[in-house]
Amino acid sequence: MVAFGGNALLRAGEKGTFEEQLANVERTCGQLCHLVSRGYDIVIGHGNGPQVGNGLLRQEAGKKVFGLEAMPMDFCGAETQGSIAYLIETALDRVLSRSQDPHPVVSLVTRVEVRSDDPGFRNPTKPVGPYYKEPGADGATYRQDPAGRGWRKVVASPAPVRILNIDLVERLAREGYIVVTVGGGGIPVVRDADGTLRGVEAVIDKDLASALAAVTMKADEFYILTDVPKVYIHFHSPEQRALDTMTVAQARQYLSEGMFAEGSMAPKVRAGIYFVESGGGACVITEASELGNPACGTRIIL
Amino acid sequence: MVAFGGNALLRAGEKGTFEEQLANVERTCGQLCHLVSRGYDIVIGHGNGPQVGNGLLRQEAGKKVFGLEAMPMDFCGAETQGSIAYLIETALDRVLSRSQDPHPVVSLVTRVEVRSDDPGFRNPTKPVGPYYKEPGADGATYRQDPAGRGWRKVVASPAPVRILNIDLVERLAREGYIVVTVGGGGIPVVRDADGTLRGVEAVIDKDLASALAAVTMKADEFYILTDVPKVYIHFHSPEQRALDTMTVAQARQYLSEGMFAEGSMAPKVRAGIYFVESGGGACVITEASELGNPACGTRIIL
Repeated sequence: MVAFGGNALLRAGEKGTFEEQLANVERTCGQLCHLVSRGYDIVIGHGNGPQVGNGLLRQEAGKKVFGLEAMPMDFCGAETQGSIAYLIETALDRVLSRSQDPHPVVSLVTRVEVRSDDPGFRNPTKPVGPYYKEPGADGATYRQDPAGRGWRKVVASPAPVRILNIDLVERLAREGYIVVTVGGGGIPVVRDADGTLRGVEAVIDKDLASALAAVTMKADEFYILTDVPKVYIHFHSPEQRALDTMTVAQARQYLSEGMFAEGSMAPKVRAGIYFVESGGGACVITEASELGNPACGTRIIL
Repeated sequence: MVAFGGNALLRAGEKGTFEEQLANVERTCGQLCHLVSRGYDIVIGHGNGPQVGNGLLRQEAGKKVFGLEAMPMDFCGAETQGSIAYLIETALDRVLSRSQDPHPVVSLVTRVEVRSDDPGFRNPTKPVGPYYKEPGADGATYRQDPAGRGWRKVVASPAPVRILNIDLVERLAREGYIVVTVGGGGIPVVRDADGTLRGVEAVIDKDLASALAAVTMKADEFYILTDVPKVYIHFHSPEQRALDTMTVAQARQYLSEGMFAEGSMAPKVRAGIYFVESGGGACVITEASELGNPACGTRIIL
């Protein structure tokens, strides 16, 4: 199981044109070929932070300029599953055809069930979408931006509990398909009293959703691709040290010492701990460009 | 194989809120249960006309209001595959749970290969997206609106030649999955000289793409759902007559007589002819609400 960050596609400082995004994902997919050629069956999860952020801005702008109805966040997340899968499929086809190791690629639109009583819903904390002059009247929670840029919707970040069609994802991967799933952490759905699933405005952490996918499929390894080659302790300080391996106990200790930034390395390390503690072999946190080296990154082990 | 029109989701005269779209697709899917209970394996293709139109407007608005880069049409089409599949999956789950006939539902992001030398590319005719004061400078073709609303991009409507992963779609359908594919006619891709596939700004007719899917999978029947219960000759005239069946020869004759409107019934009849002539059993053109009657609609037969 390999989790791409949303910035594997849309990088800070770029304009975010289609061509830039495709070039970025092609670079990442090119490195993924190292795993393909080592014989792994591969499932890809990916983030969508910058993309769904832009999607929500476009909804707002469309309302303002053309009077279009703004669609909710779950709908926008589903949109990014389609568009990012399209970029990944295009890029993977290209790099695989060059590598003489063709594999079919298939992308599934993926809903992920969360609990309606997840504590995140009582206290939403994740700001999403545009800034407003005053809180919206749509029943959602809005919080004032500490930097004074206005009010922003905040949504829950509930824990993923079940990935729909994950049995099929596993089967296809074991048959040789490279499968794209849980885009943006999955479209979050809750189970209503009548047993049916209903979308909710929320953000599931994509590393946690990918970890759950990896655990459910009994993946051998779980790669979390980010923008540093290894996990560091004392990051950006004189004592900074890169870690080659980290046991679950060490990882917990470092987390409790605040060694890893929230919203950045901390959730990745937690996703890795969850995978390894649930029976996975090893979680590797690294940069895509390192994948050519089988000993790359930081390995979280039991 | 069942092809939904884009208006099965977003109807003229409605505001197009998420709730409206979901209610519309739930109504259509509720009728589809009649086919499910008759034991058919079902693959769904769907249109995206109103949705991709709104998507292109939102791209334009996002550029104007927030300075965001506008994404090309193939990217916007891929977005609608994600979002419409999400609506269909949600709606199907609900109606299937009520019908006590549960089936898993799976949606594939689907590229469709077209020929780069398709005549449509030399003479693009399909207007898409917003109106501009003057032709764009992006190398695409722009045409002046006859009603004087300004300039609009026109794209090709090339013929579909190959649906990626259609073998997998067929296999999953035969296993009992209800499969959603070829959304909006599929994301159009052409084969470059090096053999790799590249997206293009174009619109593949969704009925033709669904017909190709039906033929490739050797589907028994091909349903085209539209907003009339049957095909009519002399439509909207005193001699108007609904057809119960129509042979391919009759269909061709009526087409040559201009009995069916271009951009409306004519492409559906052509898609039906293609299916039946390629070995399919029958094509049924009807309204979703008629599906409870096994003898519904107009049947195109050999």
